[in-house]
Amino acid sequence: MKLKLILSCLLLTTSLIAFSQEKQPGKSKEHNTDITEKGLIKISIMYPYAEGKTFNMEYYETKHMPMVAGFLGSNLVKYTIEKGLSSGIPNQPLPFMAIGTFYVKSLSEYQAAIAPNRDAIRADFVNYTNAMPVILVSEVVK
Amino acid sequence: MKLKLILSCLLLTTSLIAFSQEKQPGKSKEHNTDITEKGLIKISIMYPYAEGKTFNMEYYETKHMPMVAGFLGSNLVKYTIEKGLSSGIPNQPLPFMAIGTFYVKSLSEYQAAIAPNRDAIRADFVNYTNAMPVILVSEVVK
Repeated sequence: MKLKLILSCLLLTTSLIAFSQEKQPGKSKEHNTDITEKGLIKISIMYPYAEGKTFNMEYYETKHMPMVAGFLGSNLVKYTIEKGLSSGIPNQPLPFMAIGTFYVKSLSEYQAAIAPNRDAIRADFVNYTNAMPVILVSEVVK
Repeated sequence: MKLKLILSCLLLTTSLIAFSQEKQPGKSKEHNTDITEKGLIKISIMYPYAEGKTFNMEYYETKHMPMVAGFLGSNLVKYTIEKGLSSGIPNQPLPFMAIGTFYVKSLSEYQAAIAPNRDAIRADFVNYTNAMPVILVSEVVK
């Protein structure tokens, strides 16, 4: 009886230790989020500001970006959206109204995924902007 | 003796449960890293590409950006560096050779921290580039 009790106690503690250690990869993954961004490819779609140019952020955030993100599958690590506020240089005009950025593992996979959907993506532009975007492909250095 | 054994077993399992639950905030913090970027202010220093323009990424990464980051204190959440590779639009020139970005909590705090150091920052430009940067202040929407 005493032995049985010791054994079940041991079994319980061992499984609890295993359970608590299972959380460790989750913690190191948290670190990895920063580490693994280095080397990723960013595709930044930048909408220049100019007089008469408009941008519907709500449509962009809720419809356009999720649609494009949906084409990218597991190659997409994350995507971000930022809203231009001002130029950081006094008396200079706002450079960009908005920037949407896809962080991907492979540029060629990105291009292959976008190609068959290019017309659908372009046709959606009129729903949120009358500006022609500048697109920068860059690599995360840090 | 048996009671003592049961009690120490209970104590051990309780403390192990407490220990394993202590990891939970770590896990939810991992999520928060993404959530808290929303609302942050980005100051993006963008170096346009043009013929004859140069950029020394090694100096920028190891000297210039750490120097500026050092002025920002706890207002700085993180900073990133990216290297421009190409335009995402065929037959278009590379828009930017490099972009350095500071993610801060407060724009006014950023401005107050930079103001007394503006001359030192500008004097360092010639050490890595002959291009005049465009600076975008934006807000993280997603």
